Amino acid sequence: MASKAIFYHAGCPVCVSAENTVADAIDTSKYSVEKVHLGTDKGRIAEAEAAGVKSVPALVIDGAAFHINFGAGIDDLK
Amino acid sequence: MASKAIFYHAGCPVCVSAENTVADAIDTSKYSVEKVHLGTDKGRIAEAEAAGVKSVPALVIDGAAFHINFGAGIDDLK
Repeated sequence: MASKAIFYHAGCPVCVSAENTVADAIDTSKYSVEKVHLGTDKGRIAEAEAAGVKSVPALVIDGAAFHINFGAGIDDLK
Repeated sequence: MASKAIFYHAGCPVCVSAENTVADAIDTSKYSVEKVHLGTDKGRIAEAEAAGVKSVPALVIDGAAFHINFGAGIDDLK
């Protein structure tokens, strides 16, 4: 089974910067990388929260959440 | 010229977790990945600060600093 990396963001400047560097630096031969815009795809917020995401941008790799910088609190996106 | 990714850490639990997932997920065909333990390699702290690192673990990709979670303040390592 391929490992999964999900990059949650909200289109904010720090999100875009992280997306273009951190998210795009992930080895796609080892991970399937999915990018989710929580500002427009609010249906995925519960899933992100369940994985431990508290702010965006965040990277969830194999179920573990890693917050990148501090952009917008996830509560602000609801 | 190969792009460079530097993962700064201090051996803390969140650092090790980030190292084993985020740092090791980076595509080494696109980036040369270096891992620097600022707790033992204090000579690199100034360089990390110059890149904008304020806490560890942090990932500097092509000169841009991305903080991962919030572990230890960089001032605590001096």
